[in-house]
Amino acid sequence: MTEKTPIKAAVLVIGDEILSGRTQDVNVAAIARFLAPFGIDLAEARFVPDVEGEIVAALNALRARYSYLFTTGGIGPTHDDITADSVGAAFGLPVTHHPDALALLAARYKPDDFNERRRRMARMPEGASLIANPVSAAPGFQIGNVFVLAGVPKIMQAMLEDVGHRLEQGVPLISRNLTVRLPEGRLAEGLAAIQRENPAVSIGSYPFFAEMRAGAAMGGTTLVVRGRDETAVDAAMRQIAALAKSFGAEPE
Amino acid sequence: MTEKTPIKAAVLVIGDEILSGRTQDVNVAAIARFLAPFGIDLAEARFVPDVEGEIVAALNALRARYSYLFTTGGIGPTHDDITADSVGAAFGLPVTHHPDALALLAARYKPDDFNERRRRMARMPEGASLIANPVSAAPGFQIGNVFVLAGVPKIMQAMLEDVGHRLEQGVPLISRNLTVRLPEGRLAEGLAAIQRENPAVSIGSYPFFAEMRAGAAMGGTTLVVRGRDETAVDAAMRQIAALAKSFGAEPE
Repeated sequence: MTEKTPIKAAVLVIGDEILSGRTQDVNVAAIARFLAPFGIDLAEARFVPDVEGEIVAALNALRARYSYLFTTGGIGPTHDDITADSVGAAFGLPVTHHPDALALLAARYKPDDFNERRRRMARMPEGASLIANPVSAAPGFQIGNVFVLAGVPKIMQAMLEDVGHRLEQGVPLISRNLTVRLPEGRLAEGLAAIQRENPAVSIGSYPFFAEMRAGAAMGGTTLVVRGRDETAVDAAMRQIAALAKSFGAEPE
Repeated sequence: MTEKTPIKAAVLVIGDEILSGRTQDVNVAAIARFLAPFGIDLAEARFVPDVEGEIVAALNALRARYSYLFTTGGIGPTHDDITADSVGAAFGLPVTHHPDALALLAARYKPDDFNERRRRMARMPEGASLIANPVSAAPGFQIGNVFVLAGVPKIMQAMLEDVGHRLEQGVPLISRNLTVRLPEGRLAEGLAAIQRENPAVSIGSYPFFAEMRAGAAMGGTTLVVRGRDETAVDAAMRQIAALAKSFGAEPE
């Protein structure tokens, strides 16, 4: 069996609007799905408010612990956009106007509209490299193992296209699903035994209820096997399928 | 001015399926919106995988720091449901079958179907009090300042109905919004000045783009003023409205 040590990443979501429930975060899930084919597991996510001390503490905890850290939010032109300064403080680096970022922004705005606040979007810790923003010009940046991305999902996703080529490639996690019209409580004993016999994989059991799926007459369970060794994943999934069949379930 | 110290809470989202991007979390935002009328601010959220050490570390960090901690996920009958044991470990308490929870579950299942795994859903740290689950019987629980809730959003939301009466009432945050068809970069300098002049409120600026809203010919910005003093919030919002008007914006 080859080395299966996963590469781990974290996401830090920055913004009062997420913690107030005003805005639904969708960036964590998008980053997780983006990282999966690289063999990089999202291992933790945190949401913090627009408070520099909170951002710095979370940045330093997460960048020390994981191979990569992605931040979202707080890189616009207004007073509540404090991510660049917070990242500078976390790294102990001065934050200055990056000349390439200034040039990108200058090309986007009419001279009269390129005010001091918009110039702020070019500020980043010294030594940062730009992350292209094909949507609205103002770039993200990378410093060390930290990728600083926009909060608007459309822009965040576009920025990820300029991140992939900078990432180390791990062994991708393989995932197999089986959905059955059985309550998970009936399968639980057998699933626990299969998990014990198959320590190389991780087995997840996710119940759903009839009203959660259109046209579903009753609820059921989605069973997920994850692992880095395809043979092991498939072997565990065959045991789970046999277990479900023994309770009369037809696979969907 | 009355005392404005906010009561703060955190959410701990437990589950591999959230971190893998397979399932979109919606519970953080729902809990934030539920807490707002109680005058309780959601100050932090964390997502951790189904790993006891990770859950325990996050539980202990968050319950020590905030007045309340809400966990979601990991309270079902399967082997990957380890929240009750993790909470017990975090509190240093034994985890046993709660007799009232056993009775609730026994009433739901036929005797032949009430297997050992389903009985596990009655396990909780000693001294816990039940949180009613009107959807699928298996209760959540409260221990100290920690509320342990289901991960399925419909069940989680139903459980919150049995949580509100246990919470201290703080001073609710008052929030006012103004959406204008102006890019935030044009307003940024004036907004920064208004924020400096109004330290009792927090001003947020959230840009949106034309394609994000049906029928929108151009993008714009939603400006949000939050604070615990209505007079201060309204005063700041009047200044913001005047600022936007000076740039020719009509309020929506």
